Amino acid sequence: MKACILAIGSEMLTPFRVDTNSLFITERLNTIGYDVRLKAVVADDIGELTRVIEGALAWADLIVITGGLGPTEDDMTRDAVARVLGLALDVDESIVDRLRDRFARRGMTMPEINRRQAMVPRGAAVLPNPNGTAPGLWIEKGSAALVLLPGPPREMKPMLEAVIAERLAPKSKGSGLFRRVLKITGRAESDVDAQAAPIYGKWASQTVPISTTILAVLGQIELHLTARAASKAEADAALDPAVLEMQTALGPSVYSVDGRPLEHVVGDLLREHRMTIATAESCTGGLLASRLTDVPGSSDYVDRGVVCYSNRAKTDLAGVAEALIAEHGAVSEPVALAMAEGIRSRAGTNVGVGITGIAGPGGGTPEKPVGTVAIAVAVDEETRVRTFQFLGSREMVKFQAAQSALNMTRLMVLRQPGWREWSERR
Amino acid sequence: MKACILAIGSEMLTPFRVDTNSLFITERLNTIGYDVRLKAVVADDIGELTRVIEGALAWADLIVITGGLGPTEDDMTRDAVARVLGLALDVDESIVDRLRDRFARRGMTMPEINRRQAMVPRGAAVLPNPNGTAPGLWIEKGSAALVLLPGPPREMKPMLEAVIAERLAPKSKGSGLFRRVLKITGRAESDVDAQAAPIYGKWASQTVPISTTILAVLGQIELHLTARAASKAEADAALDPAVLEMQTALGPSVYSVDGRPLEHVVGDLLREHRMTIATAESCTGGLLASRLTDVPGSSDYVDRGVVCYSNRAKTDLAGVAEALIAEHGAVSEPVALAMAEGIRSRAGTNVGVGITGIAGPGGGTPEKPVGTVAIAVAVDEETRVRTFQFLGSREMVKFQAAQSALNMTRLMVLRQPGWREWSERR
Repeated sequence: MKACILAIGSEMLTPFRVDTNSLFITERLNTIGYDVRLKAVVADDIGELTRVIEGALAWADLIVITGGLGPTEDDMTRDAVARVLGLALDVDESIVDRLRDRFARRGMTMPEINRRQAMVPRGAAVLPNPNGTAPGLWIEKGSAALVLLPGPPREMKPMLEAVIAERLAPKSKGSGLFRRVLKITGRAESDVDAQAAPIYGKWASQTVPISTTILAVLGQIELHLTARAASKAEADAALDPAVLEMQTALGPSVYSVDGRPLEHVVGDLLREHRMTIATAESCTGGLLASRLTDVPGSSDYVDRGVVCYSNRAKTDLAGVAEALIAEHGAVSEPVALAMAEGIRSRAGTNVGVGITGIAGPGGGTPEKPVGTVAIAVAVDEETRVRTFQFLGSREMVKFQAAQSALNMTRLMVLRQPGWREWSERR
Repeated sequence: MKACILAIGSEMLTPFRVDTNSLFITERLNTIGYDVRLKAVVADDIGELTRVIEGALAWADLIVITGGLGPTEDDMTRDAVARVLGLALDVDESIVDRLRDRFARRGMTMPEINRRQAMVPRGAAVLPNPNGTAPGLWIEKGSAALVLLPGPPREMKPMLEAVIAERLAPKSKGSGLFRRVLKITGRAESDVDAQAAPIYGKWASQTVPISTTILAVLGQIELHLTARAASKAEADAALDPAVLEMQTALGPSVYSVDGRPLEHVVGDLLREHRMTIATAESCTGGLLASRLTDVPGSSDYVDRGVVCYSNRAKTDLAGVAEALIAEHGAVSEPVALAMAEGIRSRAGTNVGVGITGIAGPGGGTPEKPVGTVAIAVAVDEETRVRTFQFLGSREMVKFQAAQSALNMTRLMVLRQPGWREWSERR
């Protein structure tokens, strides 16, 4: 079944606003088998609104419209829908009464303009709004349905849940889209896809077919596995072995199959191994420590971090010998190693991480261009170091360096094969 | 003039992706007088794609389409546009040659499938893509124009800039929307609006009218001033005095009128005053240091930061007396003060910042609930401290605490009246 999501409001067409309602609506519609084929943001203009609604009615089984249900003249969703469907608009006096009550409870008189919110296209069902003044509307047109909801997420979300439970799920006959996400780091997208394609290729022709999408985002690749099934149990029966097969094939580069971000996975590992961590960062400037401490409960394993931007700070805070910096330069594997081991021994933690590099845009040289980052991880008596070349802006280099440091920590704590390939402490 | 922005790709219709390209495109089109009336995200489906393009051609002066220009069969933007406009698609051999070269430079052979990227609807102009394989296309249809661009922002952005400079700006006859943003922190939205409304109310009826929007985002309020004018000079003549009037009225709570984020403003101030800074963070976990070092060139004034999550780290790294923590608790004004002064004296910087608080979701008590954060700033011989109560999730508390620490630093370095109201070091 095909769905269309429309967000109404000129303020959503400025450079400052992103429509996030549609992400929630998509997720909820997917679970009951609707495929979202079109999302649009439309200005408060009755001409454009009617054109877009008319266009969607030509193909969509379900049209969810958010916004434009307020009391002002700018709010014309009701009028546009009534016009497209050729329905008269009547004032529903029971809605007016509820609105008057709502205002009265706050010691206010309902402004006359709010009567507009009680206009109902003939034949529509009214959807109560527990958190605001604008009621929603449910209108059927042939085999298609239109759902009109207010824009504020706090009002829209519970109303959508109610519509799904009471009206849409019963129609969907239990069939829905169920999704799993494998998160991968430390590999190129083409490399992952080359290995994954022969595996997910088979899944498309199963009894419960699974479609696979590969998404590359900064420092991370996601494989989205989507099954259409009659029930969650049926979907799980197809998705569980698929996730396991893919995870086995891709090996330790898969860090999460349950949605957790990398800092959360590393934190859970540290807690599980009863380990503590300390960080010494130069070019990432505290981003690694900040990501580690984004995880609730991280005070269980994060002891401390130091940001040693100046050379003197590297010596003061992580005990890096001045001579070492003079000999190899601040951005070098020996200095990263000394930072990791220095902070580990000073803090008395199990794990120490050292990061030193050139985030840019300035500071690069032909030998050490912008994006050169040396990362060392010390876990108990074992210390390893690697030099990376990251591409992109200053903030992108910082993020990728923190991501790689987290991943090196994960692999070393897990004693996964990968880490043996890095340089050993000499 | 009316514009429509279309993003093509089924992956943009999952619950995981937001279309942010359109924000950039909107901002750039606004400056040359285009009003964006419709934005849509469309699946990789030739039927739906042609329907949406046809619908937009009925009213739009400009249609910008991103995505769907890759080499695979899923990429059907070229085909859809050619079909709607009734144009034949020819392979442009000069594009094929460039593609082959591009692959050869990387030591690879161009896969035959990439020839699809050289398909050009007859009569279209090819837009070079300096950062990728997919060239863009420019097609005129009556008085309307279609611009086809690749989806990756790094490729799309410079290509849009070139189209605007070479093709759209000359047509726009100089009339455009010109915008200024005042960024404000440390005040409530209602409070700012109450003071600002009588001022911006007058602007709406000027010869060059200015419309004003107030946007509250986490830890920050933005006032957007938009003028429609025939030229930048005409807009500046209206906007310059307006910005000045508003800035004067709102006082030092306005930290930026030129787009710079708060960490950049603070960094520029430190450089201007030839000051250096060191930070000691507990609940923000390195976020303050990370934001300070997001600014290019921040190594000029950032000396070091410490993240002292454990009590022992507070003593080791910032010299906070154990007895002080035992007496007042780790989250207290005396400990924040000791952290700020301790890190300042150890680092030998002009400025020291200390932050200690409860980011949550655990760790709150009736006396010190989640969101309680004590922040101290030491500037040369002057030290001040304030306790804040922030609302929201762990990450929201961290962000607001870092924001407040930056703002306290700004006001103290500027010696603005506000800071005298905070508690003095005793």
